[in-house]
Amino acid sequence: MRGSKTDLAQADCAIARSLSIIGDWWSLLIIRDALGGSQRFSEFQKNIGLAKNILSSRLRKLVQSEIFTIEDDHSSPSVHRYVLTGRGKQLAVVMLALWQWGEDNCFPGKLDYGLADEASGKMLARMELETADGRRIDPHDLRMVVKMKRK
Amino acid sequence: MRGSKTDLAQADCAIARSLSIIGDWWSLLIIRDALGGSQRFSEFQKNIGLAKNILSSRLRKLVQSEIFTIEDDHSSPSVHRYVLTGRGKQLAVVMLALWQWGEDNCFPGKLDYGLADEASGKMLARMELETADGRRIDPHDLRMVVKMKRK
Repeated sequence: MRGSKTDLAQADCAIARSLSIIGDWWSLLIIRDALGGSQRFSEFQKNIGLAKNILSSRLRKLVQSEIFTIEDDHSSPSVHRYVLTGRGKQLAVVMLALWQWGEDNCFPGKLDYGLADEASGKMLARMELETADGRRIDPHDLRMVVKMKRK
Repeated sequence: MRGSKTDLAQADCAIARSLSIIGDWWSLLIIRDALGGSQRFSEFQKNIGLAKNILSSRLRKLVQSEIFTIEDDHSSPSVHRYVLTGRGKQLAVVMLALWQWGEDNCFPGKLDYGLADEASGKMLARMELETADGRRIDPHDLRMVVKMKRK
């Protein structure tokens, strides 16, 4: 799976193409906040603590990549809202995977908080690796290869 | 969930802490290749097409972060192998999430290849969002919030 920086967006690898769109810290933290309900420039800035010019350039790129659409804010005509598109919302799976790994590997003790679905109030379940026929795979036993799908 | 660049590794957010370790393109592409079996500097360089100095600095950082350990290569005493640790292998879940999103959103048609488990030859199943009690959630309906776990 080749994917050098110059051709990441054209690589034959779906991971490389994803990274060409969302592959930097700031973009992922902006999307994390948006998945939690943030929509306004000022909200992102407050939550992430990011310089205005960097936040502005990342949001512009994410709009170009159709992760966000810009909508008017009904409270004020001069304020925009950055609203996640369908493909933006699908990044929740990536975020949960990052959360899970961080929870397991980046905190000294067990975390007493986790990600939840706000509407139902339920915690999100852990995501596990399984083969298409439903067999659980321990990541320690996996060698992950690219393979042609059966027609 | 605050997490500015200076304190990403100390943020209270598991996503921010994950990104402080693996949050750049190159690191993720190196780990992708390692999950497929690559272990030698020359293999990473060939697959990713990355300048030696950048590859070298990323590998060093990933060893410091305990994603890889360095082992001797039995074929030659001057060659090292970069072997994924347990926490490195657990990143397979993040990689599958990135692949899945890229497959859905970054290719014009349907991909005729996907990620598989080499030993069994089986394709990996899609990961879906579910609440802890087993209810599937459409990402479009999710607002992802941080919540205290019940004791």
